[in-house]
Amino acid sequence: MDDHPISRFPVPDLADLPDDIADMLRGVQEKVGFIPNIFLTYAYRPVEFRAFIAYHDALLEKQEGLTKAEREMIVVATSSANHCHYCVIAHGAILRIRAKDPLIADQIAINHNRANLSPRHMAMLDYALKVCKASETIDEEDFKGLAEHGFSQDDIWDIGAIAAFFAMGNRIANMTAARPNDEFYGMGRVIQTRD
Amino acid sequence: MDDHPISRFPVPDLADLPDDIADMLRGVQEKVGFIPNIFLTYAYRPVEFRAFIAYHDALLEKQEGLTKAEREMIVVATSSANHCHYCVIAHGAILRIRAKDPLIADQIAINHNRANLSPRHMAMLDYALKVCKASETIDEEDFKGLAEHGFSQDDIWDIGAIAAFFAMGNRIANMTAARPNDEFYGMGRVIQTRD
Amino acid sequence: MDDHPISRFPVPDLADLPDDIADMLRGVQEKVGFIPNIFLTYAYRPVEFRAFIAYHDALLEKQEGLTKAEREMIVVATSSANHCHYCVIAHGAILRIRAKDPLIADQIAINHNRANLSPRHMAMLDYALKVCKASETIDEEDFKGLAEHGFSQDDIWDIGAIAAFFAMGNRIANMTAARPNDEFYGMGRVIQTRD
Amino acid sequence: MDDHPISRFPVPDLADLPDDIADMLRGVQEKVGFIPNIFLTYAYRPVEFRAFIAYHDALLEKQEGLTKAEREMIVVATSSANHCHYCVIAHGAILRIRAKDPLIADQIAINHNRANLSPRHMAMLDYALKVCKASETIDEEDFKGLAEHGFSQDDIWDIGAIAAFFAMGNRIANMTAARPNDEFYGMGRVIQTRD
Amino acid sequence: MDDHPISRFPVPDLADLPDDIADMLRGVQEKVGFIPNIFLTYAYRPVEFRAFIAYHDALLEKQEGLTKAEREMIVVATSSANHCHYCVIAHGAILRIRAKDPLIADQIAINHNRANLSPRHMAMLDYALKVCKASETIDEEDFKGLAEHGFSQDDIWDIGAIAAFFAMGNRIANMTAARPNDEFYGMGRVIQTRD
Amino acid sequence: MDDHPISRFPVPDLADLPDDIADMLRGVQEKVGFIPNIFLTYAYRPVEFRAFIAYHDALLEKQEGLTKAEREMIVVATSSANHCHYCVIAHGAILRIRAKDPLIADQIAINHNRANLSPRHMAMLDYALKVCKASETIDEEDFKGLAEHGFSQDDIWDIGAIAAFFAMGNRIANMTAARPNDEFYGMGRVIQTRD
Repeated sequence: MDDHPISRFPVPDLADLPDDIADMLRGVQEKVGFIPNIFLTYAYRPVEFRAFIAYHDALLEKQEGLTKAEREMIVVATSSANHCHYCVIAHGAILRIRAKDPLIADQIAINHNRANLSPRHMAMLDYALKVCKASETIDEEDFKGLAEHGFSQDDIWDIGAIAAFFAMGNRIANMTAARPNDEFYGMGRVIQTRD
Repeated sequence: MDDHPISRFPVPDLADLPDDIADMLRGVQEKVGFIPNIFLTYAYRPVEFRAFIAYHDALLEKQEGLTKAEREMIVVATSSANHCHYCVIAHGAILRIRAKDPLIADQIAINHNRANLSPRHMAMLDYALKVCKASETIDEEDFKGLAEHGFSQDDIWDIGAIAAFFAMGNRIANMTAARPNDEFYGMGRVIQTRD
Repeated sequence: MDDHPISRFPVPDLADLPDDIADMLRGVQEKVGFIPNIFLTYAYRPVEFRAFIAYHDALLEKQEGLTKAEREMIVVATSSANHCHYCVIAHGAILRIRAKDPLIADQIAINHNRANLSPRHMAMLDYALKVCKASETIDEEDFKGLAEHGFSQDDIWDIGAIAAFFAMGNRIANMTAARPNDEFYGMGRVIQTRD
Repeated sequence: MDDHPISRFPVPDLADLPDDIADMLRGVQEKVGFIPNIFLTYAYRPVEFRAFIAYHDALLEKQEGLTKAEREMIVVATSSANHCHYCVIAHGAILRIRAKDPLIADQIAINHNRANLSPRHMAMLDYALKVCKASETIDEEDFKGLAEHGFSQDDIWDIGAIAAFFAMGNRIANMTAARPNDEFYGMGRVIQTRD
Repeated sequence: MDDHPISRFPVPDLADLPDDIADMLRGVQEKVGFIPNIFLTYAYRPVEFRAFIAYHDALLEKQEGLTKAEREMIVVATSSANHCHYCVIAHGAILRIRAKDPLIADQIAINHNRANLSPRHMAMLDYALKVCKASETIDEEDFKGLAEHGFSQDDIWDIGAIAAFFAMGNRIANMTAARPNDEFYGMGRVIQTRD
Repeated sequence: MDDHPISRFPVPDLADLPDDIADMLRGVQEKVGFIPNIFLTYAYRPVEFRAFIAYHDALLEKQEGLTKAEREMIVVATSSANHCHYCVIAHGAILRIRAKDPLIADQIAINHNRANLSPRHMAMLDYALKVCKASETIDEEDFKGLAEHGFSQDDIWDIGAIAAFFAMGNRIANMTAARPNDEFYGMGRVIQTRD
């Protein structure tokens, strides 16, 4: 068991948090079984916490366009490029579950070029990594290439916006040294039989 | 006059926007004289717009701790590292005004090492640029160094959070090719007489 | 299940391999339950295979000095820096087993700075990554620093030699697009009860 | 007002300079209203000063081929890539004046990809930046591409030679910490009415 | 004469080495006139020495496919990219001799793009340097490109394997600060008359 | 013998050059035995040629302060960092002759950290390479460090100015693909007996 602190900054008690945040965290705990440490880390700043969650849900929980698994693929690829311990572990778990694929998260994190991906997904991640690492060089060719793979204008915004949002999230997690919960490492590693 | 489009993505009419956003934009126009193009760019996505503004104001308009000019110094330094056309121009203007210094924004944008800064401000920007460019290497030495310059724990969070937030904002502006309003370029370049 | 080919190059049948290599592979299969794909990839070149195995065992199976878990930590850290899909997955599994720690491999692969490591192990990996990425800048200070952490001259050779050996192995695996066996991903993720 | 020293090295008095240099500087002062600090910085070394000015004028004041504004575009783009405080500020002013465009210098300095440029000018700056940053990779394709945009052999020499000359000038300014005169920051920012 | 030590690590006496290694070194001395220092450096570790030599000879002394001069071109190009003092000097000498060309080694070491090479050899070195510097991005296009230049599957393995092998050898030489014998610098610099 | 063209640009006949340049080149030919190709390359632009030579001689032929060998060490180190084929070969020859050391040029070109240098010369080259590669980060610590090694203010200017001047020269040579004369490769490789 990892006994490093959750964050370099003070971690508030649930009892000291504003009601809306405390309620939300209790809801997560009930549903998932534990409170992801990034929530406790971020709760040090309630106003920022609320904006972060609102933004996060708008991009990651959206029903139209990209699938939820595709959204998590973007998170894992860009978080790995940013060497974000918290996000690769936590979103790696979510990706395994949403994609029902126990191998994909590690493959994307280590080298997306070697991952077992369709050309469409490869193009999606190539663009996401360009937003992550060299957004100043994005040009019309990038947009044309994505359109040729069937991505709509809204999809293209989403790919880029998720990469941009985690450019922020990765830096917050890195500056706070946020520690991922031990539970995430093993989640989704066994394919459930579905009969 | 620059007649490039404001954004690569559709720019909504004020009349088509949700009331709260349209009202906010009209308020800005009244106060500043024009609507910053990034607002129109972002309004393509109302839910993300609201989260962005809430987050932005929490970090940039905060009264305690860092001064507003210091906050804008961080924005300009990191936006320049990300080659973000929109943010360097727009926040350069805001920095000139808030710092009452017509030279500082260009100095920081080109090479903060050569800017006319106190050691305290140099340390602040060095850390902000580390969050911007190599957040995975942040360590306790960074925190100690900032504390020695008199930055509180809350200040340190703010410096890093602003750098992280613009890691996102810069990428959104770069992916949308958001064009800064012509007005920004010249704002704050003449020192007001102070009598 | 991943059904990509094992290697970009032809993969020999066991029946067509020289006896010593075929026997060795059958022995591994019996012991581990499967033949690691890198062996089949490398067996395309029997003479190189034998030299590779002899070198590998001299560095990874050595009894004196560094523990076997320490040796695998070096492999995982440098293989991740080289984005080697095969080696991070396969040696991540071996590291989890040898360190009896289900979390350490992912931590080191993503960002060794955030891993739960002693200062001694941090210094060991810092040096290994210097050999991996900037060996032309190694100097006496590096050797002094390692000695202060208690590493002997022979340990220092071993750390560097393992990093150098996997500089080769990672490139062979990357150029052959060697695919790690699915079994590796999940190995060592559950801590065995020890009563 | 910036009261940093003009240069890290001694700055000679006009009275102590050789006559030809003192006369030249007095001529500039009369014409422009002030002596650009780089001249005083460079005058520490009269022989080098004369060679520098001769070279500079051959490349920047040439009448044939590239326009003077185009030449300054190259200076600003490459000086920004070299983070040269002096040259971006001083030549940014000259570019605004020569191009009669108050926006172009900042656009090119921040990210020439987002500047309001013709494809011809974009190709010109792409090549100049290749000379600036990766001249060892220049090949025949670069020359063909420039020719297709209508650049003559002499133009291509000029683009490259200006980029190369400022590779030197930027480093001299950076090593001397040459401070741009305050006057440069605001020059050319207001479009003159043209009636 | 360079009187730096041969290696940072202890250099064994021939008398203390296992017979097979001592005999091999005496054979080399007889044939070449001196014992290359890397052999003495490596002999600190007899088991690794034997594996290194076996691997080296399998790749560099092979009769089929690539010529011996081509193999040395790969060594010099990649060793220079790794700033390996020992290997550029020693294999530069061997390349001059095997290619019967006194200029080629320096050309390849400084900038292979400017070397006097056929398109086939340029493609060979481009691929070798990709294995050296960015093996994680190798893809099918690389293999197709090499095939178009007439390289067989076995040749492609050899090019990559030599680059990979010297990724190891360069790091061993750099970490030991192995000093090349003075004799190597001048070898092969005079073209022998061929009558 | 290398039969590539001397330059990508037209190379003028001596007969067509202005008298002062033609005379100078004839003088060099008489003294050295051949005309260095860079002179013929540069003579395409007589005005730039004269400025280049004046600047070059001011920095490289200066009698006070740094020795001529030290000046050439700076040229070789920075030209190698810029992968300048012409300058490493030509100035490597001059360095061997001026330093009366047949090994030093190759050592510095490949990895100055491994060259047989005094701490003073190591500090000199470290600073020169900082001017070459990261001049925007030069600070007072650099100047103090050089002073501690006994370098005067004028020496420090010279080190930096030579590195800056070859930042230009290397780029001109690279953009023209200037070919070094075959004679340079072997010059100074045999130590003259000194009786």
